Amino acid sequence: MWSLREAGYVKALLFDYGQRHRIELQHAQKICQFFHVDYAVADLTAVNHLIRKGSQAGDDLPPDGHYSDETMKTTIVPNRNSIMLSIAVGHAVTLGIHDVYFAAHSGDHAIYPDCRDKFVEKFADAMYLANEWDPVFVWAPFVHMLKEDIVKFGNNLGVPFQMTWSCYKGGQKHCGKCGTCTERREAFQLANIDDPTEYEYTGPLLEAQS
Amino acid sequence: MWSLREAGYVKALLFDYGQRHRIELQHAQKICQFFHVDYAVADLTAVNHLIRKGSQAGDDLPPDGHYSDETMKTTIVPNRNSIMLSIAVGHAVTLGIHDVYFAAHSGDHAIYPDCRDKFVEKFADAMYLANEWDPVFVWAPFVHMLKEDIVKFGNNLGVPFQMTWSCYKGGQKHCGKCGTCTERREAFQLANIDDPTEYEYTGPLLEAQS
Repeated sequence: MWSLREAGYVKALLFDYGQRHRIELQHAQKICQFFHVDYAVADLTAVNHLIRKGSQAGDDLPPDGHYSDETMKTTIVPNRNSIMLSIAVGHAVTLGIHDVYFAAHSGDHAIYPDCRDKFVEKFADAMYLANEWDPVFVWAPFVHMLKEDIVKFGNNLGVPFQMTWSCYKGGQKHCGKCGTCTERREAFQLANIDDPTEYEYTGPLLEAQS
Repeated sequence: MWSLREAGYVKALLFDYGQRHRIELQHAQKICQFFHVDYAVADLTAVNHLIRKGSQAGDDLPPDGHYSDETMKTTIVPNRNSIMLSIAVGHAVTLGIHDVYFAAHSGDHAIYPDCRDKFVEKFADAMYLANEWDPVFVWAPFVHMLKEDIVKFGNNLGVPFQMTWSCYKGGQKHCGKCGTCTERREAFQLANIDDPTEYEYTGPLLEAQS
């Protein structure tokens, strides 16, 4: 959003899919309000029961520590990105917007099949064809970037990282232990940039649970 | 559904997207119940306001008479098939189902860009990639068939056409005049098969409105 908002009109679309970490919605809304970016919330809670809940939306807490392939898989919500992007594209056509961006990054690739560039390419082709009279292009500008490079990129743009949310546990503070927090903390460390996030746990980064 | 239900387990997924012709949902439910086919309803009414409403879901009645390019365009709900299919694929992964079918037919192609085989192919590729650890295949078996051929095909299978619904106006009977009714009536005529549908209007097929 930061890299786009200088370029022209930006509208944010937030998704309530019953994620445990619904606090991310509050953070996203505050960020939009603070920067005067229009936003809408797509309420998918009524279809939630149709989709298997991984740890992002289910009853089990996500595992602590660095993601392993197996622990990351427990956080999959099947076809989540396709569902969200399809609605975003429909909304874009409605508003006369021709570009939709989402922020998959290369650290997601090993486990989330719908965060890979080859998914994005095919899906973008399909979205173009699905709305060919009023085409929409789907972009994933961070799909080849590591999380630490995204931190550097955001830092250069002046992104207020203290306003952003990552933790999958959904408490009032970032836990500092779950896979997402571990990756967030590591990204700031590798980027050598001060991490303004308040974490419950600030000890050494935890290894993956087996 | 009829062509699949002999082949193994079939689950139907119905969509409530605020369509004026919501009566189609009642018909679909009755058909599923009559034939003991499991079904679920995906309630998308909460995201409806994000998507521009064509005549299928908006306030204006659909035009009477054979579809012209322009009148058919007024019935477009942007990206509808992508949204529905994405949810269907997520639900399929949840249930361990590996095939998703939808019934686009070749008469839709001229106007609905998301009913064309080239959309289906790209979208199916994207859905495969999006769920590659648990892949789902998307099929549109009628995408090259004319509506009259689908009537013949259904007739051979014993489809109870009197239980099915087409009309976009959403009255208690098929109006017999809107584009969809006109195509339905014409399909039975061309197939030379008795049409068991009760229509309000049974006069000559109406031409497209200019």
